[in-house]
Amino acid sequence: MNRSNGSPSGRSITRDGSGGSGGTGAPAPAAASDFLQLNTADAPRGGLADWLARQIRRAVARGLLPVGSRLPATRVLAAELGVSRGVVTEAYRRLTEDGHVAGRGRGGTVVVAAPLGRPAPEAGDSSRAGSEPGPLSGEPGRAGGEPGPAGAADRGLFADPDATDVFDALRAAPARIDLSPGLPDLAAFPRAAWLRAERAVLAALAPSDFGYGDPRGTPALRRAVGRWLARNRGIAVDPEDVLIVAGTAQALGLLAILLRAEGITEVALEDPSSLGLRQHLHNAGLATPPVPVDAHGVRVDALRATGAPAVLLTPARQFPTGVVLDGARRRALADWATREGGLVIEDDYDAEHRYDRPPVPALRSTLPDHVAYAGSVSKLLAPALRVGWLLAPRRHHGALVDAKRFADLGNAALPQLVLAHLMESGGLERHLRFLRRRHRVRRDTMIEAIRTRLPGAVVHGAAAGLHLMVTFDAATAARTPDDTALATAALERGVKVQPLSWHTQRPHGPGLVLGYAASTPTDIAEGVGVLGELVG
Amino acid sequence: MNRSNGSPSGRSITRDGSGGSGGTGAPAPAAASDFLQLNTADAPRGGLADWLARQIRRAVARGLLPVGSRLPATRVLAAELGVSRGVVTEAYRRLTEDGHVAGRGRGGTVVVAAPLGRPAPEAGDSSRAGSEPGPLSGEPGRAGGEPGPAGAADRGLFADPDATDVFDALRAAPARIDLSPGLPDLAAFPRAAWLRAERAVLAALAPSDFGYGDPRGTPALRRAVGRWLARNRGIAVDPEDVLIVAGTAQALGLLAILLRAEGITEVALEDPSSLGLRQHLHNAGLATPPVPVDAHGVRVDALRATGAPAVLLTPARQFPTGVVLDGARRRALADWATREGGLVIEDDYDAEHRYDRPPVPALRSTLPDHVAYAGSVSKLLAPALRVGWLLAPRRHHGALVDAKRFADLGNAALPQLVLAHLMESGGLERHLRFLRRRHRVRRDTMIEAIRTRLPGAVVHGAAAGLHLMVTFDAATAARTPDDTALATAALERGVKVQPLSWHTQRPHGPGLVLGYAASTPTDIAEGVGVLGELVG
Repeated sequence: MNRSNGSPSGRSITRDGSGGSGGTGAPAPAAASDFLQLNTADAPRGGLADWLARQIRRAVARGLLPVGSRLPATRVLAAELGVSRGVVTEAYRRLTEDGHVAGRGRGGTVVVAAPLGRPAPEAGDSSRAGSEPGPLSGEPGRAGGEPGPAGAADRGLFADPDATDVFDALRAAPARIDLSPGLPDLAAFPRAAWLRAERAVLAALAPSDFGYGDPRGTPALRRAVGRWLARNRGIAVDPEDVLIVAGTAQALGLLAILLRAEGITEVALEDPSSLGLRQHLHNAGLATPPVPVDAHGVRVDALRATGAPAVLLTPARQFPTGVVLDGARRRALADWATREGGLVIEDDYDAEHRYDRPPVPALRSTLPDHVAYAGSVSKLLAPALRVGWLLAPRRHHGALVDAKRFADLGNAALPQLVLAHLMESGGLERHLRFLRRRHRVRRDTMIEAIRTRLPGAVVHGAAAGLHLMVTFDAATAARTPDDTALATAALERGVKVQPLSWHTQRPHGPGLVLGYAASTPTDIAEGVGVLGELVG
Repeated sequence: MNRSNGSPSGRSITRDGSGGSGGTGAPAPAAASDFLQLNTADAPRGGLADWLARQIRRAVARGLLPVGSRLPATRVLAAELGVSRGVVTEAYRRLTEDGHVAGRGRGGTVVVAAPLGRPAPEAGDSSRAGSEPGPLSGEPGRAGGEPGPAGAADRGLFADPDATDVFDALRAAPARIDLSPGLPDLAAFPRAAWLRAERAVLAALAPSDFGYGDPRGTPALRRAVGRWLARNRGIAVDPEDVLIVAGTAQALGLLAILLRAEGITEVALEDPSSLGLRQHLHNAGLATPPVPVDAHGVRVDALRATGAPAVLLTPARQFPTGVVLDGARRRALADWATREGGLVIEDDYDAEHRYDRPPVPALRSTLPDHVAYAGSVSKLLAPALRVGWLLAPRRHHGALVDAKRFADLGNAALPQLVLAHLMESGGLERHLRFLRRRHRVRRDTMIEAIRTRLPGAVVHGAAAGLHLMVTFDAATAARTPDDTALATAALERGVKVQPLSWHTQRPHGPGLVLGYAASTPTDIAEGVGVLGELVG
């Protein structure tokens, strides 16, 4: 990713009206706000800061503000737009919160990431004929020209492609080497096996199978998931109690409907934990009191102290630390759940990827009346399949089925049946074994690269999963106190990583979350090398 | 479907503890409420009627209360349960509203339909081992043991498998001949073409295509849908403004989020219109003031009089009447939308199925800034695919993309790409031509059968679509004033049809909605014959 080499003034932002791909461009002679093509008369009454933040996001998405470019100083932009400086400050604050920009001290406010670019519409596209030209429709997350519903504007644009797949559709700017966590080796997707299974499924279907199905999912997949969870996660579940959903994101959304209907306004969250999860819960109107995590897992005493009636956990492998919830904490959690009637949402996002021994059984296996368990194939096969499952305490099952029915009438039937075929034929387990071997090589490559190229780093959570967390020893941390700045600098060198601070709610030392499963060993070594050079 | 031949007393309900499939069974010697295995101590505080209604629904779903069986008299059940008679009356009222039971005068309260049965879990199912036995988990729509969120209990269980695909996952009891509206000929699903397209798609995919995608849908499908709508519906749309969704049900759900966020609490509905749509809007917290439909379409003067800021319409072919919105009404509607800032939600559910001439262009084609247009492949290919599209006025697009992202991060990629391939290769248009020929034969068969076997019926909406609406001439209507009773009697003879009264909000003469597309000519003729015998 190129970095704008503009002047040191606030006017260094490139203007690239040609629709180019965010190249450097010459310093614009025009006013600092020109790139935004702003007209405050378009702004809605009472929402200037929102509106401004949105315009800037859009400019970032369109490549008019490439990563590395500086935003105008607040007083400069305020003067040019004829608005108060507070409006601009507030807009910048929102952009900082959602990860678009970062303060760089004397360096000003700098664009640190953009939503994934998309190709410009084809000139000869017949479907464009007669429609309005859409210069403002370039941003995936927010293409409209007016404000969305209340609250929409302060949602982060940043995906956390990890602990669950919440928000993962939005990714940061493309990078030469992408070490974001949360993806399995996508090149290994079993295309031939998938197609064979689909052929078998299509040959066996009755016409009525093409009609409206059971909103809970096809019986075949619910049975297959039940057996899969029994074999792999120690969970005994009646297939009748399995709800097939469109990934963990939807599972959380359905649970949020249930919780809100019960008057629940808080879901405690591990700290650190996935930014994406937090954003999703906030979007659903739920506060997320943070609960510290230590070497034994989540601190149940601290959970109790929050008074929250529900908690979202990653017990098998805490995201992003990799800590396994130990026996004593499990017992304490069971005590909390049964005495206080607390609900645990168990996000079992990558437990199957364990390299040393079988994974610990899911919490759900021992607390079926208190745990809503969510899993998906996003880390087993591919996020693009959008298939997951939700097992709720039986008292909530009916309400969740209702919510799923109203959401979309149930997942599509064909992919469910193909997946069931792969699960029941042993094809999915074979694929998982294959993935584990590949992932293990990549993990070892990353650990070795960190040992040799990033010696100040401390590795966490290497026994399982698709990513490592690193923190820094005291000397390195003192040199690199700001992990967002480190991630930004890495992105400018073409290497994408996630700063630990994205995933924390309370103050925390610097760190990084580094995915290895989806990158080749060569890229992993080179990417870690770049980090080593930056940390120095 | 067998009918219970129990005694004339309130104790005629069969008890079928063997888990049989809802056969007749002998009159139970036990108390009337035995079949429910009720323990009022399980009931939640303050929700007895809800709870009782749910228990009865469950018993219906499990086959313990077969269609045709009578519920205990309210005073008998109240005495046995030790609750007030008002509780039982209220529970029965809810069951009546959602279509499970119907009052039969001196015949008492009779079960008239059940949700689709599903196979009992296999005895040897390993996934069942160790889980709790699930005698109460038998109902697809409501398997939990405790009340769902507020409002859930009064949602109808009845699917309206029509105008949109809302709620269609829940169907009434299976019938020998199913003339419910809303399904195309599912036996004609182009399995071979689908598999060929999927092979081509899989061969061409990049690994990153298996990752998290654009929440708006794959660019390939958005382009293909844009061209499809240009060719078939007269709509010019930038592919950037197309949002791929999981069917019309999801489109409505996303729109409801938008509307609620804007403070809108009412969406006017045509009367008659789909029961499923109405239930969906009610679930979303939106009231649905009814607007009459006449031979020219929806009465725009009456719409204006409601004061509602939004209206849901089926302009190309009004459901269920089949009326096409005429030019004068379109102009009046445009005037309403532009002057009052009204939003039209256009449900274009089956416009492609027209037998006499090309369908009228969508309303969206002339009012892009005021129409949110929803379509799907449910009537073109199969509901089980769960793919549809939503084109919103540009000012709403960003908020809807946000809502889609939070809902499920976007539709699954593979089926989108396969569908795009079928659309762009001409395969879908070929399939549609093939379907039209088959459907036309079936329609003609139904019209002829009605002419000869149901001479008191008046046919509406025969020029297009997948169903007919029939009303009755004065003499026949006088003999058959209650169309729900007629549908119930037909179901007892193995023929499923929908009474017009399901789809009306204001008083209306009797009628039926009869789907023909998914049934063979033989079944159509026989089914109409049964109706003819019942009408007499």
